[in-house]
Amino acid sequence: MTHRIPIDLEKSYRLLNHGPTVLVSSHHAGKDNVMAAAWSMPLDFKPPKVAVVIDKNTLTRKLVEASGEFALNVPTRELAKLTVDVGSVSGREVDKFAAYGAATFQGEQVAAPLLEGCIAWLECRLIPEPHIQDTYDLFLGEVVAAWADPAAFGNGHWNPEQGGRKSIHYVAGGHFFETGKAFEVKD
Amino acid sequence: MTHRIPIDLEKSYRLLNHGPTVLVSSHHAGKDNVMAAAWSMPLDFKPPKVAVVIDKNTLTRKLVEASGEFALNVPTRELAKLTVDVGSVSGREVDKFAAYGAATFQGEQVAAPLLEGCIAWLECRLIPEPHIQDTYDLFLGEVVAAWADPAAFGNGHWNPEQGGRKSIHYVAGGHFFETGKAFEVKD
Repeated sequence: MTHRIPIDLEKSYRLLNHGPTVLVSSHHAGKDNVMAAAWSMPLDFKPPKVAVVIDKNTLTRKLVEASGEFALNVPTRELAKLTVDVGSVSGREVDKFAAYGAATFQGEQVAAPLLEGCIAWLECRLIPEPHIQDTYDLFLGEVVAAWADPAAFGNGHWNPEQGGRKSIHYVAGGHFFETGKAFEVKD
Repeated sequence: MTHRIPIDLEKSYRLLNHGPTVLVSSHHAGKDNVMAAAWSMPLDFKPPKVAVVIDKNTLTRKLVEASGEFALNVPTRELAKLTVDVGSVSGREVDKFAAYGAATFQGEQVAAPLLEGCIAWLECRLIPEPHIQDTYDLFLGEVVAAWADPAAFGNGHWNPEQGGRKSIHYVAGGHFFETGKAFEVKD
């Protein structure tokens, strides 16, 4: 089981602020799904909000619109193959969790499953904005619970230098970057 | 002068896909400004679109709304101090270009100045969506021209391993990550 601690909602934006690629998980009426999304970002601090692009052709889109909920999961390099795999097939054709051996656990605020092996999780409630959903595939959500692996994120900061596992950043065609060296700019 | 080459619009999403922190530059009626934004992402491939969060209290907001244009500039670690600085003061109080010695050049499609020393630039035309601008500070744009430093990005891919300068990813409180090690997942 993945070790995890709750993250203050006001600091939950820091889980996404550096632009990692995420896995979007969803659940509705007995059906679970997960897809990859390089296009997500924080949208507000308090209450914390996020934005994520979810294509019209995805099962995720149907589950998110029907349930009004989703979760963003922050994977590591160990899950990069899974990230590409779940971004390459539709949940309409395959039960991706079974096909790729992805284990999940339950969050506290939404029914979308959370993926074992990730380093952070944001449970989100959809903020319905039909016009931008329909026109731009753009979905907004309020973060209602957040979690992190304490080996990767603690005291409000990522700890990549101390052996913590790192998030990943997708480019295109199977190419990723790891999150790199931390540095600080002093005033 | 920064060396730069035009990037195919269809590949311009790759300049932002890995989630770098950007500088948002703008121009209207003789006034230039620049601010930092950790919250931006691609929104579509073709025509390429982007989304970026621009707070109500910024001069950038006024200039973008008045001109219907902006540019996203991708800075490197050498510009991290500038990134924090231009994110910490308002263009209403300070001419940031003069105050921080930031040199600029002209793009081709929009009047917003582009920052020397960055490794990529996206010239954007605002897609007016007043409801989400007013409610979420969320701005959408169509990318109408894109540029990159060929030492950092060529043939549609970033080249961080070959001595190319790297983009940066802001977390909070002056803490950044560099873009890290590249890796590839094969099917």
